[in-house]
Amino acid sequence: MTDRPSVLVISAHAADFVWRAGGAIALSASRGSAVHVVCLSFGERGESQGLWKQEGMTLEKVKQTRREQSSAAADVLGASIEFLDLGDYPLRVDEATQDRIVSIMRERQPDVLLTHVANDPYNRDHNLAHETTLLTRMVAQAHGHDRSTTPIGAAQVLQFEPHQPEVCGFTPELLLDITPVFDRKTKAMQCMSGAQGHLLQYYTELGLRRGVQAVRNGAPAGVTHAEAYQRTYPTVGDQLW
Amino acid sequence: MTDRPSVLVISAHAADFVWRAGGAIALSASRGSAVHVVCLSFGERGESQGLWKQEGMTLEKVKQTRREQSSAAADVLGASIEFLDLGDYPLRVDEATQDRIVSIMRERQPDVLLTHVANDPYNRDHNLAHETTLLTRMVAQAHGHDRSTTPIGAAQVLQFEPHQPEVCGFTPELLLDITPVFDRKTKAMQCMSGAQGHLLQYYTELGLRRGVQAVRNGAPAGVTHAEAYQRTYPTVGDQLW
Amino acid sequence: MTDRPSVLVISAHAADFVWRAGGAIALSASRGSAVHVVCLSFGERGESQGLWKQEGMTLEKVKQTRREQSSAAADVLGASIEFLDLGDYPLRVDEATQDRIVSIMRERQPDVLLTHVANDPYNRDHNLAHETTLLTRMVAQAHGHDRSTTPIGAAQVLQFEPHQPEVCGFTPELLLDITPVFDRKTKAMQCMSGAQGHLLQYYTELGLRRGVQAVRNGAPAGVTHAEAYQRTYPTVGDQLW
Amino acid sequence: MTDRPSVLVISAHAADFVWRAGGAIALSASRGSAVHVVCLSFGERGESQGLWKQEGMTLEKVKQTRREQSSAAADVLGASIEFLDLGDYPLRVDEATQDRIVSIMRERQPDVLLTHVANDPYNRDHNLAHETTLLTRMVAQAHGHDRSTTPIGAAQVLQFEPHQPEVCGFTPELLLDITPVFDRKTKAMQCMSGAQGHLLQYYTELGLRRGVQAVRNGAPAGVTHAEAYQRTYPTVGDQLW
Amino acid sequence: MTDRPSVLVISAHAADFVWRAGGAIALSASRGSAVHVVCLSFGERGESQGLWKQEGMTLEKVKQTRREQSSAAADVLGASIEFLDLGDYPLRVDEATQDRIVSIMRERQPDVLLTHVANDPYNRDHNLAHETTLLTRMVAQAHGHDRSTTPIGAAQVLQFEPHQPEVCGFTPELLLDITPVFDRKTKAMQCMSGAQGHLLQYYTELGLRRGVQAVRNGAPAGVTHAEAYQRTYPTVGDQLW
Amino acid sequence: MTDRPSVLVISAHAADFVWRAGGAIALSASRGSAVHVVCLSFGERGESQGLWKQEGMTLEKVKQTRREQSSAAADVLGASIEFLDLGDYPLRVDEATQDRIVSIMRERQPDVLLTHVANDPYNRDHNLAHETTLLTRMVAQAHGHDRSTTPIGAAQVLQFEPHQPEVCGFTPELLLDITPVFDRKTKAMQCMSGAQGHLLQYYTELGLRRGVQAVRNGAPAGVTHAEAYQRTYPTVGDQLW
Repeated sequence: MTDRPSVLVISAHAADFVWRAGGAIALSASRGSAVHVVCLSFGERGESQGLWKQEGMTLEKVKQTRREQSSAAADVLGASIEFLDLGDYPLRVDEATQDRIVSIMRERQPDVLLTHVANDPYNRDHNLAHETTLLTRMVAQAHGHDRSTTPIGAAQVLQFEPHQPEVCGFTPELLLDITPVFDRKTKAMQCMSGAQGHLLQYYTELGLRRGVQAVRNGAPAGVTHAEAYQRTYPTVGDQLW
Repeated sequence: MTDRPSVLVISAHAADFVWRAGGAIALSASRGSAVHVVCLSFGERGESQGLWKQEGMTLEKVKQTRREQSSAAADVLGASIEFLDLGDYPLRVDEATQDRIVSIMRERQPDVLLTHVANDPYNRDHNLAHETTLLTRMVAQAHGHDRSTTPIGAAQVLQFEPHQPEVCGFTPELLLDITPVFDRKTKAMQCMSGAQGHLLQYYTELGLRRGVQAVRNGAPAGVTHAEAYQRTYPTVGDQLW
Repeated sequence: MTDRPSVLVISAHAADFVWRAGGAIALSASRGSAVHVVCLSFGERGESQGLWKQEGMTLEKVKQTRREQSSAAADVLGASIEFLDLGDYPLRVDEATQDRIVSIMRERQPDVLLTHVANDPYNRDHNLAHETTLLTRMVAQAHGHDRSTTPIGAAQVLQFEPHQPEVCGFTPELLLDITPVFDRKTKAMQCMSGAQGHLLQYYTELGLRRGVQAVRNGAPAGVTHAEAYQRTYPTVGDQLW
Repeated sequence: MTDRPSVLVISAHAADFVWRAGGAIALSASRGSAVHVVCLSFGERGESQGLWKQEGMTLEKVKQTRREQSSAAADVLGASIEFLDLGDYPLRVDEATQDRIVSIMRERQPDVLLTHVANDPYNRDHNLAHETTLLTRMVAQAHGHDRSTTPIGAAQVLQFEPHQPEVCGFTPELLLDITPVFDRKTKAMQCMSGAQGHLLQYYTELGLRRGVQAVRNGAPAGVTHAEAYQRTYPTVGDQLW
Repeated sequence: MTDRPSVLVISAHAADFVWRAGGAIALSASRGSAVHVVCLSFGERGESQGLWKQEGMTLEKVKQTRREQSSAAADVLGASIEFLDLGDYPLRVDEATQDRIVSIMRERQPDVLLTHVANDPYNRDHNLAHETTLLTRMVAQAHGHDRSTTPIGAAQVLQFEPHQPEVCGFTPELLLDITPVFDRKTKAMQCMSGAQGHLLQYYTELGLRRGVQAVRNGAPAGVTHAEAYQRTYPTVGDQLW
Repeated sequence: MTDRPSVLVISAHAADFVWRAGGAIALSASRGSAVHVVCLSFGERGESQGLWKQEGMTLEKVKQTRREQSSAAADVLGASIEFLDLGDYPLRVDEATQDRIVSIMRERQPDVLLTHVANDPYNRDHNLAHETTLLTRMVAQAHGHDRSTTPIGAAQVLQFEPHQPEVCGFTPELLLDITPVFDRKTKAMQCMSGAQGHLLQYYTELGLRRGVQAVRNGAPAGVTHAEAYQRTYPTVGDQLW
């Protein structure tokens, strides 16, 4: 590990990080942060309808295709990626997996964590990713856990905007200006298009819409694209705005 | 008006801004912001118990003393101040007053507004100050209001920490590092000590406590004092933390 | 005023205190508290359907009938009563009325206040009674208000159970055992029966239902009737239960 | 008044009903409902930036233009419309106006009411329109109010989707299929385009987005456009879905 | 499976579906829906006090009695029923059980699901039934799960009214008119009377009370009995009310 | 077991009960209650930073030290204590442990339970302690569970004040006067000082602060120290305050 700022993304399914946080990832990477994505599952059962419509598709093929697509997207965004292959719909996280995620956190020493919201009534895998992130973050902070590695600091946990935000109780607390990297996010989203192509338009429009809201909330006029996040903890800082 | 950043504080009573936002004011002023405090009332009836205990006290004397103390405190903090003398317990805000506050906003062109929370079950004057701030901010933004002055931008409204935060539903979203100016806040609080001296210790301890929380939430170890604020709108920016 | 404990009830309409708090009133009175009811209006327009169905009814007759019924009910419950006649549907509370209520509070020196919830989507008069209670309580506490009378202490504000509690966000925090006085509440409710007779059965059943819930939440088995209240402030005490 | 179902829309500003409820209005009208729109103000100060940019614009001209545009839009949607001209930014509603709205309700005998949300931190005029609707609905239901007209029934109040729904605590509870009338909503929106043309694209996309969500929540595949509403009261009915 | 509408009820304990949803079940069945009840447990430990008071009672006898009573009740209501016998107080749901419930969902292809609320502080079995329903619904929707069966659609999840609704944060969003089938619900409740007879009166009164509320919220005057439900997702439709 | 009132404290880590509930424990014990503390873990990994800084520290030594300190503190407070040694960061509670806690509850027959809040974003062990308490309380109440022991009654669950209360959604509902026993709480806190000495000052100040709030909320002037608790269920009683 170097002294570069570190961003760690915990994604329930292989594509979530692209649609929901591609801008944040590309932005951070473009500024020198080391961004690492942990995909808990490939979303092979629940989020690969396009692939399943193909003749002769098998679970392994779906997973392999998703792995390739997500890896390509991560590469475009400037992030490293790993896949824990825990299964989806439902995602299951056992104690060994918790330990593994703690290890990743301690190795990566994240300055900020990105993951899903706490309560998505449509998708309980997202909820489990949220809970797993808070739980492993707590363990990774503990001085008495695995004395051979270094506890992490008090990283903020930014929650992705879910697909139906108002039904999930999502409140945008950060409108992140991703204008300079939106073309990169677009390229990353195109990597996923075989599986979920119709989402490309959706998230392009969402980026624009959040960009407009950013300006309405005080961003400079040049801001055109944004991503929304909800914070889990207070921010700390020495500026009022 | 110059190009300096502008901070506008709407304080229900003459002393609120000192206890609750003295650090933010001093910090902003020390960095070159133009900070202006609008005291809606002197807190003459409801927040001047110490003065009322003195022999021969009258309403005018209380108001005069409060004016002097608050002016001295504002001076220490580096802020300008004005008093609207609207009465307290209860505070009343009529249409003409709303217009006057709009004028102040347009003149000051605030980059950020500071005021009270929306729902304090102990103190409805605080609620009215909150509502007045949101309403006048909206008017001050309107292009068709008073075409001779300039609409303001989309300034964030930071809400002060109330005295019993948990009962007011207050959620700290910003822990502001006021370490470099805490001595100045202390001096300002001392200006008020005739009226509400026991609060000096309270807010000194609160500053330390919020400082500890800031560190627990990721601030550098050197941070020792903080003030907590709740935001009204999402933040906008190009950084994850 | 004597040293008896003092209970003050702020009722939006002339009958609310009977249905919603008759048990609390009778219980307190039976133990020696001085209970006083302030009816902000007679509920003459919005809560007197039965009377309006009568031939030749006029607003004055409705008000007079309601006054007589409520006075009789208060008498049965052991409370004194006064009527501010502010009008209903909508209730209106001006500054002079606020001052008058403050005077009543200061005269009565209440140990506890009873009134409506903050947000009843069906009945905004209830909301205004709630807001008025919190506002006048604040003023009545102020040392600088009307130096000829004595500020009140920090009386709890207990909120009545509204008619459709779940839609009003009502959370029962106190299930008050009114078993010993339920016959008295029944008699008081019967005083109102000309106007709103069908409510007698409703509130009888509600009393039983809340009694069952009281037992389910730990009351002794002998408890058969209760009333539910939501608190506005924390309780203080030296007992865990 | 005939036996046609009656829909009453309370719009804070002259254009709100078009963007936020144009589909519901056109749909209801196309099925035979009598739809009436009450514009509390023209939005002349706060929502007419486009007009104010024109040379020599005056308040009266803005209001006149807004009146013409909104009337044209209402006509396209199949609704009647009236303007109360109460002023905007801030909107003010006095007692006489409340009475007037009650009269309109009693004349129209609405089966459903449409208006704004309770708490929009950006726009307090919306909040006042909400509060006014609930208050006047209550008065219009009162048997003792104006014995010469007929009390209304328990009409549902559907709340429009605000412009930044997640920041207003808006929860979609009804996704209304407006597919058959979206072209009509488009035409109505085009009537407003001089003033707020950039909103046409925004609400076109929003209609599509809510249409997709409707399908995701169980609507038939042919549904392409929807509007979201939050309910104020429980629905009643004899069907589970 | 035929083309009849399909209703699936997930009941934590053997009797919950009778008390809380008997009306909805009978109503749906009487109109031709195929209604199926899945009892996760018999409620043998926690909800069979009456049986345990009998001499010589054993766990098996309690379970057998509960099975017979619930089967008889389901028969009266017109529903089929099955028992998963997962144990109660606490209920436990393992992965195999989740899969089994997914299979049932896929076989039944429900148009609507009925189950418990998310957070009952008195009864964590209810919470687990809620969570299990949302989780298995998600899996049953997944295209990649068990390719030999057909994914379900986006069925609404209606949440039962809990026994102490206000303490569980329950908000009634649907007041279902069960007037035509209340006699049938009564007969079904009588099937359970050996175990929990005192509940018959309670739920009879609740049915009447919710019926009165239905009328107050706009139902026709002939409605006398109702059941309350909270929705999990927005409704979709083409009608405003 | 005798007829003494019984208080049962479920503490996630070995020290939580001292800092957060030491006053309640000492107060109850001083009045004759039998107070028993169940420490689910020693807090050996996550809450023993001081010990881990010592040379040659091992997990067993940390646990032993924590056991000794907590036992000494319990002794000072007048409580008995036991340690379940379930591990911390993360705490894990399996079915056998649930049964064991049920047994303890049935043996102790608590009149009141004390434990952590439901949702602490910093510390998921606290959440699990909360959930475990509600779940085992439910089982311990069940008549059909372990027929050889006696079901418990409907004990209130009082939730400790967490370390960052506003971020945990903590609402103080009981400000418990611990003035008479604060010296005892201080002595107990000193027992823990090797591990978490800096907390002594924090909780001394918190005690004073909550004491001031108690007085502001109506406690007699002699009250100087308090602890805050949130209730899980309504209180039952025959007094308004």
